[in-house]
Amino acid sequence: MYETIKTNITDNIMTITLNRPDRMNAYTEFMGDEIIAALDHADENDDVRVVIMTGEGRGFCAGADLDKDASIFKSDVSIEDYRDGGGLVSLRIYELKKPIIAAINGPAVGVGITMTLPMDIRIASEDAKMGFVFARRGIAQEACSGWFLPRVVGVSQAMEWVSTGRVFPAQEAKECGLISRVVPPDELLSTAREIALEIAENTSAMSVALNRQLMYRMLGADHPMESHKIESKYIYWTGRNADVKEGVNAFLEKRKPEFSMKVSSDMPDFFPWWEERKF
Amino acid sequence: MYETIKTNITDNIMTITLNRPDRMNAYTEFMGDEIIAALDHADENDDVRVVIMTGEGRGFCAGADLDKDASIFKSDVSIEDYRDGGGLVSLRIYELKKPIIAAINGPAVGVGITMTLPMDIRIASEDAKMGFVFARRGIAQEACSGWFLPRVVGVSQAMEWVSTGRVFPAQEAKECGLISRVVPPDELLSTAREIALEIAENTSAMSVALNRQLMYRMLGADHPMESHKIESKYIYWTGRNADVKEGVNAFLEKRKPEFSMKVSSDMPDFFPWWEERKF
Amino acid sequence: MYETIKTNITDNIMTITLNRPDRMNAYTEFMGDEIIAALDHADENDDVRVVIMTGEGRGFCAGADLDKDASIFKSDVSIEDYRDGGGLVSLRIYELKKPIIAAINGPAVGVGITMTLPMDIRIASEDAKMGFVFARRGIAQEACSGWFLPRVVGVSQAMEWVSTGRVFPAQEAKECGLISRVVPPDELLSTAREIALEIAENTSAMSVALNRQLMYRMLGADHPMESHKIESKYIYWTGRNADVKEGVNAFLEKRKPEFSMKVSSDMPDFFPWWEERKF
Repeated sequence: MYETIKTNITDNIMTITLNRPDRMNAYTEFMGDEIIAALDHADENDDVRVVIMTGEGRGFCAGADLDKDASIFKSDVSIEDYRDGGGLVSLRIYELKKPIIAAINGPAVGVGITMTLPMDIRIASEDAKMGFVFARRGIAQEACSGWFLPRVVGVSQAMEWVSTGRVFPAQEAKECGLISRVVPPDELLSTAREIALEIAENTSAMSVALNRQLMYRMLGADHPMESHKIESKYIYWTGRNADVKEGVNAFLEKRKPEFSMKVSSDMPDFFPWWEERKF
Repeated sequence: MYETIKTNITDNIMTITLNRPDRMNAYTEFMGDEIIAALDHADENDDVRVVIMTGEGRGFCAGADLDKDASIFKSDVSIEDYRDGGGLVSLRIYELKKPIIAAINGPAVGVGITMTLPMDIRIASEDAKMGFVFARRGIAQEACSGWFLPRVVGVSQAMEWVSTGRVFPAQEAKECGLISRVVPPDELLSTAREIALEIAENTSAMSVALNRQLMYRMLGADHPMESHKIESKYIYWTGRNADVKEGVNAFLEKRKPEFSMKVSSDMPDFFPWWEERKF
Repeated sequence: MYETIKTNITDNIMTITLNRPDRMNAYTEFMGDEIIAALDHADENDDVRVVIMTGEGRGFCAGADLDKDASIFKSDVSIEDYRDGGGLVSLRIYELKKPIIAAINGPAVGVGITMTLPMDIRIASEDAKMGFVFARRGIAQEACSGWFLPRVVGVSQAMEWVSTGRVFPAQEAKECGLISRVVPPDELLSTAREIALEIAENTSAMSVALNRQLMYRMLGADHPMESHKIESKYIYWTGRNADVKEGVNAFLEKRKPEFSMKVSSDMPDFFPWWEERKF
């Protein structure tokens, strides 16, 4: 039924497995569409009480599938119409009526980690690594991570991870509240299923759906859509500029990047997009 | 003076003791009214610099006092007029000019823990347990916990506790930031008084009041009243439906619940209550 | 070039050193102006990728430079025109396009710690101590800390530190997420430079600037300017009243303060400044 993911329903739990193991489950727009379709199905099907997402093989998701033209960040539509695909996945998860658990079995970088931020619970294998690597590729944050990340781990930790773009181990992620449990690789899925069963066997599906939306809507008068709007412009604009070319090529060539764009003169014309606050 | 609580003022500290020990201090609407009256008195009386809340006997507060009709969740008024009683307590605490400390001496579940969320400091005995058990009873969150809980412990931990509805020990609560100190049972009240005295003896009451309201008002352009509005609808509606009947009866009969309501078809007509955001 | 600070640029890192070591680098309005000028320079100069702030000598910043008239909190302008100087520094840091790291080498109290809250990363020496001491001086919070502090450490920890006004060690600050690393004194600056170099050598300046502003703007529909407005009124009004006189004198005389102002009758006429929320 799906090409880039697999789904399976047992014991009222839908497991979505990202399934491009030869590419470390790197994200494509098509994979995003398939994830959204599976989540639509999870919401419609009352037999599904909880969703688990994991990855096939050694990785969870290596981020956007990059070629040397960084073509995944390019689009034929205008900057006004362009929508970041990772943001569409995050917004779909935000709207979900069922709890969703990320079982991070290996590297989760870029969109591979940002799309887990609207998930209710994230657990990881001891082998997993995470990274908000955008600034190392000359691109900007996406998947509504501008809205979710500071709410999940606090603004200071968010700034440090995003500004350095460094890759960090699961244990650090746990200490900082990004991950709630780190377990040996062979216990990852059974632990995720144990949590899912605790929900499925003991709670009212209706209560869980009411509560999930209550807490998300009470996180602020604002909404992750605000982040999605500006992130879409960010991705569109950065995806056509010099730094993404250098960042992606340096990554593919396994060398340090030499970025050339200047914040004094090279910022996009839509920046700042906010109005100055008056005293 | 009060029937369901006791109050005492010494050394500029008002101690409010929930006082239905034969019911583990289970919450009633009348207890809520008495707590609010005591807090009004605390705000009017300049001799009171700090408030401590604790429970008589083995428990702190076992949650709403349940009978097999779950009658505490039922009301004769309309859904538009119904106000969740725990929310009235939380909003009163939010408005308080004095700091308030929860000294959690034993089990604190349901409204027994949610009404402590707007308190400034929560400490607990090693024997204490907490639980946001609403989904296990077929009811929804209340006492403005939709607004407070994600702000106190972060949205991910909030989702996990609320979605599983599980009861957890004080030590886990401390690791997750819900509780700031866990102490032996016989040191609980003396520790709370020590913190209270540190405030009473060293600070300006006026400065403390200005700062407390500053930080609450700066938590967002929104307000816990938004949570109270929708939670009141939640409680009213869930309190008349099949899942609460099953949830409460299963609890009273000490068996697993078998919930029947479906999120595909049985959600209330006021859900979603928000407008869809456009791109 | 500067009188109260020193600046130095090497390896694309600007180091700002607070430089009044005989006063433990106590803050003056003039120091605030010089910090803002240095940050303007950092933003204009593309050679500067990261900013580090530290203190000369034994202290980081002992807070506002107090004399027995608490004259730093007094001003000839009207309460409508008065602007808290620490807030101007915090707002300037908030607008910065470059990441900024606080390397806290010793005591950081009052504005000495609040002005670090909009910084991206805070590390400290084992010898450092912090304190939000405002309520012990009869003054109110400032430097937009009403907005930043609950977002950095959560509202409960924020309330406890602000309500007690107590001074606490770097290790407690780390456990509560205010500080990300505590290191021996002689490793502080090298650790800060290591973090700064990780950013400078691996990331796109443009990406980092886009991401930094994204996350700050997505923290809420509100803005730290709202906190600055009311804090400026707070400082102006408290700075002319009895409790600040007692608080500052008790501090200078190393004795416990005896505050006289009552919250029942002595609150300012602009409190509450918010409108009551209707159900």
